[in-house]
Amino acid sequence: MKFNINNFVNIRSQRSKIVDFQDLDHIDGVSISAVSAGLYNVKRDDVVLFYFREGANHASVYTQSKLISENLKWNKKIKAKKVYALLINTRNANALTGSKGYDALKQISFDLSSKLNQIQERDEDVPKKISSKEILFGCTGTIGEKFPFEKIKSSLPELVGKVKYTQNKLIWMKAAMGMITTDLKPKVAMAETKIGSSRIKIYGIAKGSGMIYPNMATTLGYLFTDATLSSSILRDVLKQNIKTTFNAISCDGDTSTNDMVSIFSTNKVHNPKIEKFSDKRIKNFINAVHEVLLNLAKQVVSDGEGASKLISVSCVNCKTEKDAKNISFEIANSLLVKTAIAGEDANWGRVAMAIGKSNIKISEQKLSISFGPYKIYHKGSIFKNYNEKDVMDYMRGQHIEIKVDIGQGSKNFKAYSMDLTKKYIEINADYRT
Amino acid sequence: MKFNINNFVNIRSQRSKIVDFQDLDHIDGVSISAVSAGLYNVKRDDVVLFYFREGANHASVYTQSKLISENLKWNKKIKAKKVYALLINTRNANALTGSKGYDALKQISFDLSSKLNQIQERDEDVPKKISSKEILFGCTGTIGEKFPFEKIKSSLPELVGKVKYTQNKLIWMKAAMGMITTDLKPKVAMAETKIGSSRIKIYGIAKGSGMIYPNMATTLGYLFTDATLSSSILRDVLKQNIKTTFNAISCDGDTSTNDMVSIFSTNKVHNPKIEKFSDKRIKNFINAVHEVLLNLAKQVVSDGEGASKLISVSCVNCKTEKDAKNISFEIANSLLVKTAIAGEDANWGRVAMAIGKSNIKISEQKLSISFGPYKIYHKGSIFKNYNEKDVMDYMRGQHIEIKVDIGQGSKNFKAYSMDLTKKYIEINADYRT
Repeated sequence: MKFNINNFVNIRSQRSKIVDFQDLDHIDGVSISAVSAGLYNVKRDDVVLFYFREGANHASVYTQSKLISENLKWNKKIKAKKVYALLINTRNANALTGSKGYDALKQISFDLSSKLNQIQERDEDVPKKISSKEILFGCTGTIGEKFPFEKIKSSLPELVGKVKYTQNKLIWMKAAMGMITTDLKPKVAMAETKIGSSRIKIYGIAKGSGMIYPNMATTLGYLFTDATLSSSILRDVLKQNIKTTFNAISCDGDTSTNDMVSIFSTNKVHNPKIEKFSDKRIKNFINAVHEVLLNLAKQVVSDGEGASKLISVSCVNCKTEKDAKNISFEIANSLLVKTAIAGEDANWGRVAMAIGKSNIKISEQKLSISFGPYKIYHKGSIFKNYNEKDVMDYMRGQHIEIKVDIGQGSKNFKAYSMDLTKKYIEINADYRT
Repeated sequence: MKFNINNFVNIRSQRSKIVDFQDLDHIDGVSISAVSAGLYNVKRDDVVLFYFREGANHASVYTQSKLISENLKWNKKIKAKKVYALLINTRNANALTGSKGYDALKQISFDLSSKLNQIQERDEDVPKKISSKEILFGCTGTIGEKFPFEKIKSSLPELVGKVKYTQNKLIWMKAAMGMITTDLKPKVAMAETKIGSSRIKIYGIAKGSGMIYPNMATTLGYLFTDATLSSSILRDVLKQNIKTTFNAISCDGDTSTNDMVSIFSTNKVHNPKIEKFSDKRIKNFINAVHEVLLNLAKQVVSDGEGASKLISVSCVNCKTEKDAKNISFEIANSLLVKTAIAGEDANWGRVAMAIGKSNIKISEQKLSISFGPYKIYHKGSIFKNYNEKDVMDYMRGQHIEIKVDIGQGSKNFKAYSMDLTKKYIEINADYRT
């Protein structure tokens, strides 16, 4: 299996064909199932189960929204060192559903644990009885609608009955498809790395594609590894990497009530024991997790609602990283920048406008703006060799790189966004119909 | 002339017919001219001159963008107690144009003052020689393009030659039309009031319609009054009123480099002398200015790019007014809220999402959300009499009122926004072509 470095070119090429699942196979200790609970008017998979027969250490980051969904309230209360299942449903966010929404999860976790225990009992290797408090939930979909408790509950026998013990590319695809909403395609990524001399797999899946503006972990993203790592190490790895990956993307500037990114380790590979995050032997693992997260995050943006182009915004040479992030997102979230790019217009003046509306003092004499390889504005005036025609040609590409040099320090940030098209309006004006 | 209280119903009715200019006539001391300098490919008025023969006291508020246009840099340096002219051009924002853009204004102000002095000399009443430092500029249009100095300079003889000393509704319309960009219609408002027993007129014009997110005075807005009021009193009146009018609107969350709202008094009516802002005799005047500003601000939002509906967002019972403003604008600027409203979808969950992404702690048990007269979410659960069909009917209207009760205090804010339609994308993807 090759070391899969999905750079942007790969991702863009995936836009025309289906995402390439061929490298995904089995991660020891992860079992998957996806079925239809009839949550949509059309028949499609809408509940997905990840079952960890021998448990998994785990760590999650959640939305920083001040209104969070009932499933995140549930998850935040889970104190178990190991979890045994992650149940994901789409179509309904279970947010603003109050105690009824919460109680539904309580009931479902009870039913699900008892059904999983019937399997556990059959398996001599795993005599552990799963408690309802060892299950996590991921919910995505419309906010504020009644949670479809009965439908999901009724789907549990089929869901548990169809659990696959050995995974292949098809079941990963089924899982990734089973949790999408307005996404046009499933999102997966993977990396292989080593801890000591032990080969480790990291597989990830994610869903977009609206209400995507990161403030912690936006969207749903789940990583699975067969490494042996404590929940505390997993938490550090996730925290360290989320800032420049899922927290560096924005589709529409809107932050969901349900955002959740988790990493699970099944401890099936007996790598050297890692006690500390600073242990050099997990450096490669950390980098590989970053790569998978960034890959998924870029896929989420590239497949953002109505997106025709991916936009990356690098803001360099700021006094602080916070400044660089603020300016990057002012640009990445500006409707006028996003629509100009949709129109393939090299309207760099709108980038300047977006820089100006950040709360950071800017000196025109130190400011430079480039699109791709083309310098446009350079320290107080139009760049001497600027040729609008070249940049107009560049704007026809599918990946627009904006670089802004503030010239005030040495801190940088890179944000990822998408253009804003009529298709976005179409999707979102008619979302519930 | 009737006291013109333009409420929203009036403004909406103006959407189908042309704005009603019939109440606007002459303001003593204001002379107007508008001509074409050929700044657009099509022939249209694009430079507008307001000429104050005997000078006008004045006050302005400007954008809080960290990158401001060259004309605002010019205006901020004007120390003259009275100004004699305001020259407005459209099509080019004169922003990010550097010293060339600034020098162009210097040259134009020199030429314009010398041309106006030829008129002044003919008029025995006004022996004052106008200096180039007694002229203000308003610029709007594309950022970063070379400022069309020669074209504007060449238009000055015709512009000054056509100055009208007596104003009527047609010349006000011509002026309002001469400064629009993507606006579909000109924006005017007026009020009459009294200071002491003196009758006072307040006329205002404004332009939208993109890059509208207030941080100080967004867009261009100009008020003219015949009252005798010092520049310092005018400044206080403007500051006091801008917060709840032009600074309470947003079309697209983008803040211009050129925003400017000014008020000019020609001192032609000899009202009682006002020394202090707290003088009770200008209370009615202050209210009338508020009314004109709010009227113009609502017109700007109603005619926002691609707007089909006006949205007002009241956020009530917050701990601070800042919290109320933050929450209001999180809702008013959310693409998902704006597209749902464009789609006439009562998707109140998106309003909840937008509340959640503000940085303010929210208790679901205290939170209520209404659309128009319909309570939807009430203190932790769906309102018992909530009927989605009623709200769906309500969404077909042209003015959608969202009310959010946070239940934590007594401070309120009301923001004005518009829906987000395909038309917006069309306008902004092709703005420069």
